[in-house]
Amino acid sequence: MKPETQSAIVREVGLRDGLQSIARVLPTAQKIEWIRDAYAAGQREIEVGSFVPARLLPQLADTDRLVEFAKTLPGLCVSVLVPNLKGAERAIGSGADAMLVPLSASHAHSLANLRKTPDGVVAEIAQIRGLRDAKGSKCLIEVGISTAFGCTLQGKVESAEVLHLLRAVLDAGVDRVGLADTVGYADPAMVRQLFEQALPIAGDRLNCGHFHDTRGLGMANVYAAWEVGITRFDACLAGIGGCPHAPGANGNVSTEDLVYMFASMGVSTGQDFDRLIALRAKVAQWLEGEALHGSLWRAGLPKTMLTATA
Amino acid sequence: MKPETQSAIVREVGLRDGLQSIARVLPTAQKIEWIRDAYAAGQREIEVGSFVPARLLPQLADTDRLVEFAKTLPGLCVSVLVPNLKGAERAIGSGADAMLVPLSASHAHSLANLRKTPDGVVAEIAQIRGLRDAKGSKCLIEVGISTAFGCTLQGKVESAEVLHLLRAVLDAGVDRVGLADTVGYADPAMVRQLFEQALPIAGDRLNCGHFHDTRGLGMANVYAAWEVGITRFDACLAGIGGCPHAPGANGNVSTEDLVYMFASMGVSTGQDFDRLIALRAKVAQWLEGEALHGSLWRAGLPKTMLTATA
Repeated sequence: MKPETQSAIVREVGLRDGLQSIARVLPTAQKIEWIRDAYAAGQREIEVGSFVPARLLPQLADTDRLVEFAKTLPGLCVSVLVPNLKGAERAIGSGADAMLVPLSASHAHSLANLRKTPDGVVAEIAQIRGLRDAKGSKCLIEVGISTAFGCTLQGKVESAEVLHLLRAVLDAGVDRVGLADTVGYADPAMVRQLFEQALPIAGDRLNCGHFHDTRGLGMANVYAAWEVGITRFDACLAGIGGCPHAPGANGNVSTEDLVYMFASMGVSTGQDFDRLIALRAKVAQWLEGEALHGSLWRAGLPKTMLTATA
Repeated sequence: MKPETQSAIVREVGLRDGLQSIARVLPTAQKIEWIRDAYAAGQREIEVGSFVPARLLPQLADTDRLVEFAKTLPGLCVSVLVPNLKGAERAIGSGADAMLVPLSASHAHSLANLRKTPDGVVAEIAQIRGLRDAKGSKCLIEVGISTAFGCTLQGKVESAEVLHLLRAVLDAGVDRVGLADTVGYADPAMVRQLFEQALPIAGDRLNCGHFHDTRGLGMANVYAAWEVGITRFDACLAGIGGCPHAPGANGNVSTEDLVYMFASMGVSTGQDFDRLIALRAKVAQWLEGEALHGSLWRAGLPKTMLTATA
């Protein structure tokens, strides 16, 4: 199945997945500038932060303020990560358009990270849905099934387990689901196979691929998912989002490279290269000394695309 | 069409395409050590150098000696690049198993680089075939159609032109043809489309993909070609092969990352990670100060593959 649409959504998650992996705390004013410039570059989905306790992630402690600012930008879908019911309550209160709830398909990782089994997290997701409805909120609930392609703790994660959890969160009434490879274990054949299995179960509700470039396969994995019909992907400007315990390691697929790949393939993302690259330069200055990634910023656009806009 | 075979060939071209882009001259003894270690790591196709005038590429002036050494390793296919009939004569004389003749699909690039039109190069390739037969040599003739996906000089390269040249070199009697993106202009959709058009024309004789990672799409491009049935790829250890005029730019797809991608997909390349990574460390020492690339060396194998060999 080839995608019929020739447009794709690249959601910026640098302010959340990127910055949470970097020890320094970026001032709120710079984050606001980032969001404003990203919006000006054509980004229409931005994950601005996370409603986790500030003592755990001081880098994201200003999420409320960022949602408030981002909501002033017309047509921007403002998303936040929430780890649990308490975070969901804050997200709903903040006025965010969407909340991303991570669900680890790996038992070992789920227990280590959230002190809950995956099924326990599914139960909480059902509560989040109940809360959202009780509050009369329109905040979309999106579940990101992480470690869907393997886990640094337990190793292999069975696709049957991923598909079981997918059915369970759909039954719990979530609006959208994505599959995530936060540890960089996926390869394009795996991606193709798992998305092909998941699509008949979830249909249009399965609409996000989240890939890290840890072992150099991030872009190939995006392409594999795109080929089977996925049209929405997470990415971080400058490819930040590496593991804090592995200095220099590649992070998320880089926004600017992903936007370039799609544009080259004739797929519109609505994003403007020059503005993205200019913003990248700013972020690089703010994050001086941190490992940044991506290729397009150095190589520039091919001659064949120099007058093109995505 | 999915490949039926579950094995792939990764040909090492670091000693040629990689080293020709690096100003320093690696001593012959180190190159021999590289070839020996690469062979011990399971590599069975290595491009050891190029028969071009030494004044143009002093880095590759010892190609004769390298062919001589490489031919002592049983079962190793030793290839060299030759730019013209004179180079072909030297290749045949050296005892190499295969010679790669570059043919640029871009008129502008062909004129600038070889002072010949693409059709002029095709005529010389026919002469090379005549020479090979006259000498009773078994040296395989492989043509690499470069700038097949675009050109830094002329921009767009029409696929009709690439397919015209493909037919022409097949008519000229070459044994193998590959499509090359030496400038990093290709995207996976382009790769898929061009290989799909080329395969019915060339059949099994089209059996090499040569991709650079200039804009981060190298691995995605390999995957796209693999998906339509290509099972043989060029790569450089440590991803060397960047443009000498663009310091730090990504080079060829990196051997170790490519071998990893295939192994993860269940595709055997016969190459051993530990030995590749150990050799990479050696090469990194020899090339200290040069820009190296690739991801696997830093991240290591996923837990799911720690006991696996490719």
